[in-house]
Amino acid sequence: MLPTAVIERAQAEMLDWNGSGMSVMEMSHRGKEYMSIASKAEKDLRDVMSIPDNYKVLFLQGGASSQFAAIPLNLLGEKKSADYINTGMWSKKAIAEAKRYCSVNIAADTSGNGFTTVPTQAELKLNPDAAYVHYTPNETIGGVEFDYIPETGDVPLIADLSSTILSRPIDVSRFGMIYAGAQKNIGPAGLCIVIIREDLLGKASDITPTMFNYATHAENDSMYNTPATYSWYVSGLVFEWIKEQGGLEAMAVVNKRKADKLYAAIDATDFYGSPVAINARSWMNVPFTLANADLDAAFLAGAAERGLATLKGHRSVGGMRASIYNAMPEEGVDALVAWMQEFESSQS
Amino acid sequence: MLPTAVIERAQAEMLDWNGSGMSVMEMSHRGKEYMSIASKAEKDLRDVMSIPDNYKVLFLQGGASSQFAAIPLNLLGEKKSADYINTGMWSKKAIAEAKRYCSVNIAADTSGNGFTTVPTQAELKLNPDAAYVHYTPNETIGGVEFDYIPETGDVPLIADLSSTILSRPIDVSRFGMIYAGAQKNIGPAGLCIVIIREDLLGKASDITPTMFNYATHAENDSMYNTPATYSWYVSGLVFEWIKEQGGLEAMAVVNKRKADKLYAAIDATDFYGSPVAINARSWMNVPFTLANADLDAAFLAGAAERGLATLKGHRSVGGMRASIYNAMPEEGVDALVAWMQEFESSQS
Repeated sequence: MLPTAVIERAQAEMLDWNGSGMSVMEMSHRGKEYMSIASKAEKDLRDVMSIPDNYKVLFLQGGASSQFAAIPLNLLGEKKSADYINTGMWSKKAIAEAKRYCSVNIAADTSGNGFTTVPTQAELKLNPDAAYVHYTPNETIGGVEFDYIPETGDVPLIADLSSTILSRPIDVSRFGMIYAGAQKNIGPAGLCIVIIREDLLGKASDITPTMFNYATHAENDSMYNTPATYSWYVSGLVFEWIKEQGGLEAMAVVNKRKADKLYAAIDATDFYGSPVAINARSWMNVPFTLANADLDAAFLAGAAERGLATLKGHRSVGGMRASIYNAMPEEGVDALVAWMQEFESSQS
Repeated sequence: MLPTAVIERAQAEMLDWNGSGMSVMEMSHRGKEYMSIASKAEKDLRDVMSIPDNYKVLFLQGGASSQFAAIPLNLLGEKKSADYINTGMWSKKAIAEAKRYCSVNIAADTSGNGFTTVPTQAELKLNPDAAYVHYTPNETIGGVEFDYIPETGDVPLIADLSSTILSRPIDVSRFGMIYAGAQKNIGPAGLCIVIIREDLLGKASDITPTMFNYATHAENDSMYNTPATYSWYVSGLVFEWIKEQGGLEAMAVVNKRKADKLYAAIDATDFYGSPVAINARSWMNVPFTLANADLDAAFLAGAAERGLATLKGHRSVGGMRASIYNAMPEEGVDALVAWMQEFESSQS
């Protein structure tokens, strides 16, 4: 989902960007018009996230899935092992790919409770000689979110922030690298943002494809080859929109209120339930179940009639899942809560 | 450049695709709406290019530059060496990346004449035990184009068709694999089409990142992860547009006429010149020089005033270069020819 204002602006500018007579889709990535779009998007993202100057911001292709390989390939250096925290399906994918390139130490694993909690700091079995610690602050499918940033000492912390980036302020300086596929909270699919501390660049292993080498992209301002120009442009419109909304502080207020409303509706009755521990509940992805799963289909059908789409839970977990990213207006949550109450009443 | 009709349609459908109430940019790639867009685009491309059934069509990210590594990683199998034909800057990039993964036999090299010719079939020093033969049928920067498809016997022929795909009919069955970054003749940047014969899949080396493994994408209909959904959609509009124009036969007629007009204007006077051998002249990228290079700046300035943009030659070769891809209307070539004649007159 994208903010309606952003899509409308992209539509208005589609045939003629800023009097250039060109569509952004047609611009050369090396032309001055596109360079101004690209650099403004980076500047706005740096402003919005307060990204320190010693971090590079890369606009890459290939999604977060490509970073699952690129991270060990770029960051292992002389080390042989990396720490991974396993809190759900995306963690697992990152771990499976990393194991192909290095020894993986599982610093914590919540699969035993069906990925419904996050480990505490004290529970993390960190290896002080690890090349890095990788975790997934928000698991999209399970709807589990860390309520703290792990302390990893001198070992760089790497975060797959795909489903929670831009939802609230975050202290970038706590991380060695943050990455995020664009399609959840940034912009159209096809773009992946990598924010990486400069001292971590330049250690890629010999087998790293050039296009997976972060240093190559950092040295070329993400224009080593033709980037995903249009997705980069629309993401820039989203960054502008966030600024207009009051920045990440303002996004956080709205997102917290949206999530609180939905969890309150779930907790208000035994008709609905949340599998996730209270301290680990995601602001962005809210899974919930009906006590009587036989009613799932009727619930979903009625929701669809009311314009509440894509509520079906991931095939791996079942039930419902509401994704309430930045672009979901508060009215959307209100409508869902109203339908939950109406549906429950209709069944009693 | 994209056909104006395509951009206008993308604009019209921007806020509400086909009554779905959703923008294509917001659709889940696994939803039925997007699946229908994706599969129609593939079907139309198969129709337009007459792609045989034993070829997979992949819609990937990372551009042709990513394939420079993915090709040796996927196709070497038990072999140790691959043949590469060097006819310009893109060939060179493909070779440099391949050398990181295998022994490269340079089957022909036209750098000695400044990349202004293509080697003949008889000049190709092919290794019968090569894993594959790689070449660049059209070199974007030098404007050199093969006027034949190399015969490579049982060794699969791999072609970087980025700058000439869809410009005319091509016999796909002659190739083991064709690949093309979208941004020249297909659609918006961020998408790379790979057309690969099925028997070449499944031989990727152990170090291949999962996202570089063609078999992974083939097994998942290019939806192993979130693809570049919007670029895929716009590319589908371009395929439809080509069908409406009469298919690749019709594109070839127009493209040949456009190129002939421009080369005729260059050859008509000593004021202009083409560095490229006549049999190797590209239909898509037409480099030309002014006999007096001191006039380059004045020529370019006047061209820009007439809306003839991006005519400056690549920094590596200088002079001028007109890229006359499918989306460039014949009137654009006529306007350029008119300006060339006017400029010459003004200087005499």
